[in-house]
Amino acid sequence: MKCAIIGATGYTGLELIRILLRHSFVQLTYLTTRQKDPIPVRSLLPVLPESVKLEIRNHSFAEVAKNSEIIFVCLPHTESMAAVKEFRDAGKIVIDLSADYRLKNLKAYEKWYKTKHQYPALAKKAVYGLPEWCRREIQTADLIANPGCYPTSAILALAPLLKANLVDPKDIVIDSKSGVSGAGKKANPATQYAELDGDFYAYKVNQHQHVPEIVQGLEMIGKKKVSLNFVPHLLPITRGILTTAYLKKKKGVTEGQVCEAFQKVYAKEPFIRFLGAGKFPTLKGVNGTNYCDIGVTVDNATGRTIVISAIDNLIKGASGQAVQNMNIRCRFPEEEGLKVW
Amino acid sequence: MKCAIIGATGYTGLELIRILLRHSFVQLTYLTTRQKDPIPVRSLLPVLPESVKLEIRNHSFAEVAKNSEIIFVCLPHTESMAAVKEFRDAGKIVIDLSADYRLKNLKAYEKWYKTKHQYPALAKKAVYGLPEWCRREIQTADLIANPGCYPTSAILALAPLLKANLVDPKDIVIDSKSGVSGAGKKANPATQYAELDGDFYAYKVNQHQHVPEIVQGLEMIGKKKVSLNFVPHLLPITRGILTTAYLKKKKGVTEGQVCEAFQKVYAKEPFIRFLGAGKFPTLKGVNGTNYCDIGVTVDNATGRTIVISAIDNLIKGASGQAVQNMNIRCRFPEEEGLKVW
Amino acid sequence: MKCAIIGATGYTGLELIRILLRHSFVQLTYLTTRQKDPIPVRSLLPVLPESVKLEIRNHSFAEVAKNSEIIFVCLPHTESMAAVKEFRDAGKIVIDLSADYRLKNLKAYEKWYKTKHQYPALAKKAVYGLPEWCRREIQTADLIANPGCYPTSAILALAPLLKANLVDPKDIVIDSKSGVSGAGKKANPATQYAELDGDFYAYKVNQHQHVPEIVQGLEMIGKKKVSLNFVPHLLPITRGILTTAYLKKKKGVTEGQVCEAFQKVYAKEPFIRFLGAGKFPTLKGVNGTNYCDIGVTVDNATGRTIVISAIDNLIKGASGQAVQNMNIRCRFPEEEGLKVW
Amino acid sequence: MKCAIIGATGYTGLELIRILLRHSFVQLTYLTTRQKDPIPVRSLLPVLPESVKLEIRNHSFAEVAKNSEIIFVCLPHTESMAAVKEFRDAGKIVIDLSADYRLKNLKAYEKWYKTKHQYPALAKKAVYGLPEWCRREIQTADLIANPGCYPTSAILALAPLLKANLVDPKDIVIDSKSGVSGAGKKANPATQYAELDGDFYAYKVNQHQHVPEIVQGLEMIGKKKVSLNFVPHLLPITRGILTTAYLKKKKGVTEGQVCEAFQKVYAKEPFIRFLGAGKFPTLKGVNGTNYCDIGVTVDNATGRTIVISAIDNLIKGASGQAVQNMNIRCRFPEEEGLKVW
Repeated sequence: MKCAIIGATGYTGLELIRILLRHSFVQLTYLTTRQKDPIPVRSLLPVLPESVKLEIRNHSFAEVAKNSEIIFVCLPHTESMAAVKEFRDAGKIVIDLSADYRLKNLKAYEKWYKTKHQYPALAKKAVYGLPEWCRREIQTADLIANPGCYPTSAILALAPLLKANLVDPKDIVIDSKSGVSGAGKKANPATQYAELDGDFYAYKVNQHQHVPEIVQGLEMIGKKKVSLNFVPHLLPITRGILTTAYLKKKKGVTEGQVCEAFQKVYAKEPFIRFLGAGKFPTLKGVNGTNYCDIGVTVDNATGRTIVISAIDNLIKGASGQAVQNMNIRCRFPEEEGLKVW
Repeated sequence: MKCAIIGATGYTGLELIRILLRHSFVQLTYLTTRQKDPIPVRSLLPVLPESVKLEIRNHSFAEVAKNSEIIFVCLPHTESMAAVKEFRDAGKIVIDLSADYRLKNLKAYEKWYKTKHQYPALAKKAVYGLPEWCRREIQTADLIANPGCYPTSAILALAPLLKANLVDPKDIVIDSKSGVSGAGKKANPATQYAELDGDFYAYKVNQHQHVPEIVQGLEMIGKKKVSLNFVPHLLPITRGILTTAYLKKKKGVTEGQVCEAFQKVYAKEPFIRFLGAGKFPTLKGVNGTNYCDIGVTVDNATGRTIVISAIDNLIKGASGQAVQNMNIRCRFPEEEGLKVW
Repeated sequence: MKCAIIGATGYTGLELIRILLRHSFVQLTYLTTRQKDPIPVRSLLPVLPESVKLEIRNHSFAEVAKNSEIIFVCLPHTESMAAVKEFRDAGKIVIDLSADYRLKNLKAYEKWYKTKHQYPALAKKAVYGLPEWCRREIQTADLIANPGCYPTSAILALAPLLKANLVDPKDIVIDSKSGVSGAGKKANPATQYAELDGDFYAYKVNQHQHVPEIVQGLEMIGKKKVSLNFVPHLLPITRGILTTAYLKKKKGVTEGQVCEAFQKVYAKEPFIRFLGAGKFPTLKGVNGTNYCDIGVTVDNATGRTIVISAIDNLIKGASGQAVQNMNIRCRFPEEEGLKVW
Repeated sequence: MKCAIIGATGYTGLELIRILLRHSFVQLTYLTTRQKDPIPVRSLLPVLPESVKLEIRNHSFAEVAKNSEIIFVCLPHTESMAAVKEFRDAGKIVIDLSADYRLKNLKAYEKWYKTKHQYPALAKKAVYGLPEWCRREIQTADLIANPGCYPTSAILALAPLLKANLVDPKDIVIDSKSGVSGAGKKANPATQYAELDGDFYAYKVNQHQHVPEIVQGLEMIGKKKVSLNFVPHLLPITRGILTTAYLKKKKGVTEGQVCEAFQKVYAKEPFIRFLGAGKFPTLKGVNGTNYCDIGVTVDNATGRTIVISAIDNLIKGASGQAVQNMNIRCRFPEEEGLKVW
């Protein structure tokens, strides 16, 4: 299968290259950048062997479309919109890692991303690429909107409880902590080493653009209106998102029922590891993997269920999940390219 | 004023030495350890000038008591209990940085610290050393139980809202993140550099020994039963605690009222900096200081008030607060020794 | 091929497990520890999938020997000595990751490791496992003494110049900087996170136990007495060794000749990447790989040749090199199990 | 004494503000920036108390000159040149933290900084502000060229041995390792947190612009031509420079003589701490201080003397030394504003 990556110089693009290079059924055709001069992949990923001669080049979309079957679009939000349209018009399977085709409510898109959506019809057809909850739709999708990193960590943690109707959908707190690679590779004064070293803080409190995506995902699965607060924090580390979620359980619900809800939906999932009650994940446990680790506890005194999830934001939160989606769409083994050892 | 530090080799003891060395009205008499051989302070605090000739030595408590007026006890929990008793019996003013005299409910003490309290009468007389809320009692206290680091960050953040009756005392989530110096200086496999580097996780979920102290503090101030969940997390950094708290505001309460509640009680506090609505603290902003920075926001859609506080766990969360308490007790200027510049 | 790992709970043992699990021609039989209770491998390597059911157990050496063909010994220096002897007596191929069989001069061993060597005859037969320079001997060796991390980084950097007789063997400075995992996993006050964070320093200046191993390696290859200074430094990072070496070139030697010397001996080496003149390695470029990256420059004004090498201390500096040695010994493809992607 | 800081928003400017705020004999008048809008100092230095109302503003140099006696110029190299001239023309005492007036050999300046020097006469009059070696000249200087960070660490380490004629001035290796704040505050892709985290490497090998300054300083003091190699490395930490220097001792020179050379020149220096033979400095030991810590060892086998020095690059390597220079020039106590506790 011939694959291209549009916007290959950022963290998600590079992680995709790494994964696809070890994928047995894929050939990387085009890796693109808007920079004029070709960039050897090895200059950005020096751990690769010298035998990797690939270059990232300023190919036109037309050129890419001509000789690729699957296109991964790793452009920034709002810039992805037109590229995706062009590749879909050319009949290609597109996996979009930006936010441009994730939201079904285009008013919400315009509010949070400050841009009018140009292709509402296409947005309507896009399939949300969260395999654990949308696998069937992904199997036949031609445009897969790969989920955001925070939404992946939050939806995977909360959806089983909403689906099983064990918690109050109107009383949800999501406290997330992310490594700094989530902010992308662009130089930024706030994420310089000397600035972030030893620091930690909340940002975009209640105002992160991933809020509507989390809400949409939870409502799609739980079939009920949800109401939540989401506070992201920036960790002085490179990779990983840990999400600590606080829910109000419905009366009489037991820890056993809570665990059962997770086991039921995730038991056969290759990339979800439900740790059980009283056991909680660490970032190191998922670092470099496509796993989402989840632990829970129920406090009968307060009636609260606490769910903690951990992912590698660049893998399960981005490029790993994109490959998982491709594997599902192309009927490859779902773990192909994504095994740790 | 002649001061001694019992258990001076740990992080809180060393931080006390640093602060008291720049305090204008204090003379350090004894610095103790149970280790046999004397330890030059400069071997543990190499930034100090060579003119500092102090040594930490295996002095007996009797010797210490003879020639000191104020005793800071920095022993581990449960070991502090008897030392404090001995110094109080000798008529000294004692500031105890351990948890042994913080809890009024000795059943709770025994449950969380797994030791029977030997001196209930003394525990009853101890004054909780949170200056912003107990300043009057501290002014005449002979035994000051210096608060824990998490309780300091949590109580300072939540108490104004409970006091002003603006939030539901039964619906409280406290999500805290602490630097690793909070775990003390003892070698521990889990906090080796190579283990913690790049990691982040929750621990003692709903089971941290600081829970009863937070509850006691909030109930003392708010005069109402509280019910809360507390989840501490370990940050791969050395210093600082950031606490993100989620409360349910009472109907009709506005962000303006919330801010007013903080301004009212903290406006004249030398070490609280209320940042206002929509502004949030960072660990770097309080690192090396005795400040507690606090920011808030109110979400009318969910009815939730979010409060975020930041402290340096070794200063406002331990040794700085102990000196602030001494300053209050001895009628020194409250900021003495605690100015940043 | 049935492989066992003796002392599998440390960093080198765990890294070996990771590598051997992805090795196509190997089956892990026994993983041992002196701890009484079995330890699931996944509790120490949580990134591994749940399908890995291996346990590290307190197996006797006799039990291990009975059902293994290759034994990796990852015991601490001086403790490895007897274990290796026992496995050799049982006729097994042994790859020893400790220092016990590296030095041919047993007086030097006794001086630097403060223990008398019990098995001089066996020590004599051991083959030094630096593939780039001892591949032929390794192919038939039954006891391979896997090199130390600093010696690997230093010998690979300097040997080509000594071999080609381009530098003065009596005028060598080796300034190395190592991540903290090189100190092993045992809890140690000096390598606690809060102690090492933000720090950096030299240690064991001219007194590191790897000095005689570096000297032996360079003399073996260069066939001339060498005289050197070696100063190791501790980096506040987890993995990697960067070695900056300063040599005096012989009169008239050009940068071109220097580069040629490296190209000549390393051109076909699968795990050496010679970067050329004026290009220098980074730790990130080798992190997680079995590569040794090397760059050089010649300063005609001072007559000095500077060589900089980088390795991952746990891989090329320990477990990766051990597997490379096994591959050579067993005639497996040399890169098996050691590919990055 | 009225002081102004030109270019106050960078790391050296901010560190100067911190130090001068605690200086007893100084009043900060103007803090300048080329940015249009005023910047409250507390927005950049949040640890300062709310009582600090200072702002950094776009003042004209003329305005600054009118009402200041001492001007600290913290502009980038090459931009400082004209500013210094203007303030000198206005008769002000100027302390320049850039490299523009450090080099006496203006050809070297033009070669390394790629700019023609516009004010050779002024450059000739500038005094090199290394107090331990130029105190007398500093006492009456009107233009003090504050040394670079690497040169401070290198010259302080090597000068006593060259001065005492104990080492070969033609055989010097300087291997330095610096925290990233030395690269300044400007956003830079290579020093983003996610890029530098876990990495370490040499840069500008033999090509760092501080080479001619180190050579000039050593030749000025040792009165002999020196020949050296200088290799700087970038540490994944915020502050500190550790320099490991390798020298060839003259025949017969003993470790005792080496120590004596240091003690003789530094015994009364308030900011040099000579640790003696076999004792070596750490970055943590000088972090936040104006100290330079120095340790040495002599290897009789190789004839090499190894000197290791540590400084905080932003304090002794920049702003602290600038204040030390001001104190000397203005006959203030030399430690004023620079005490640690």
